[in-house]
Amino acid sequence: MKKSLGARTLIFPSPVWCIGTYDKNGAPNVATISWGGICCSKPPCVTISLRKATYTYGNIMERKAYTVSVPSEKYIKEADYFGLVSGKNVNKFETSGLTPTQSKLVDAPYIQEFPMILECKVIHILEIGLHTQFIGEILDAKIDESMIGEDGLPLMEKIQPYVHGAETLGYQRIGKYIGKTFSIGKELFTPSGR
Amino acid sequence: MKKSLGARTLIFPSPVWCIGTYDKNGAPNVATISWGGICCSKPPCVTISLRKATYTYGNIMERKAYTVSVPSEKYIKEADYFGLVSGKNVNKFETSGLTPTQSKLVDAPYIQEFPMILECKVIHILEIGLHTQFIGEILDAKIDESMIGEDGLPLMEKIQPYVHGAETLGYQRIGKYIGKTFSIGKELFTPSGR
Repeated sequence: MKKSLGARTLIFPSPVWCIGTYDKNGAPNVATISWGGICCSKPPCVTISLRKATYTYGNIMERKAYTVSVPSEKYIKEADYFGLVSGKNVNKFETSGLTPTQSKLVDAPYIQEFPMILECKVIHILEIGLHTQFIGEILDAKIDESMIGEDGLPLMEKIQPYVHGAETLGYQRIGKYIGKTFSIGKELFTPSGR
Repeated sequence: MKKSLGARTLIFPSPVWCIGTYDKNGAPNVATISWGGICCSKPPCVTISLRKATYTYGNIMERKAYTVSVPSEKYIKEADYFGLVSGKNVNKFETSGLTPTQSKLVDAPYIQEFPMILECKVIHILEIGLHTQFIGEILDAKIDESMIGEDGLPLMEKIQPYVHGAETLGYQRIGKYIGKTFSIGKELFTPSGR
């Protein structure tokens, strides 16, 4: 039996991504979000949603650029902190001790210590309600060299991203590999598949 | 040192969600996607992106509704299969043996056996490129009663969703709880936080 919990954002899982921007004075800011996802393959695009009240919202409206830095589990405290305080009141790079690196492709900084980075140019802005959605075209993906496998792709086991539970407000580890996409379901093709 | 991997959708993690729709003859269809995420809190909205070539794209354009059914790890093969074949050629509910249940709120079916469901009415459609983005307002979230905790919220440990690695094409388990959102970072407020 299923229970109705109402009109709520109760869906698993959500990502934990740190959004890097510059403010109008050129100071770097970072804010952690969970409302986002990839939204197109060609051009490669990632969407993030922000409330108008946030400092990051104003920065992106001004510069039309942002980066996404994916925290490893070892930076869970810093990433949570980046969602707790506003860049209006504090320089979060200074207080956390992490390093802002200026993107060469877009007008935004990323977090040097984090292992997985996207540099994005805003191509669409959509007012939805409490949140405004920004669609960013991905101009480059940068990965720590030590976390790239022999196939040239990032290794999730090394990057150690984690997930967020919307509304349940907890972080959970990403664990072991359980199957290959577009492959593990092939056995359902055969008559004996079920 | 970071390595540039180019303009690619290399960001972790992505969700694994099964999108339920009806076709023009009223036959239920389901397709698995990974391009999506929550995009607004009020009204609660979730976005998904689809290629125009997909059967689900045509169904949503016609009915302006979809459901999101979150597979548990035990249904990993079925969910992968739903991304491997098209509803143009096969009734995936029949071949998988899973049960389509008609939503009472929107013109779309969900997967009865899956533990976490959203019922969505399309409120925005945005052409991005290869993918079209649909923004669905969440009218209800339905959870298996046995997977709701004492606080009235779904338990990720029981629902057992899993994540997808964009471009790396692997599924990974969601593991143990590692911290509370808007809380674990509070120690960085104190001078001794670092």
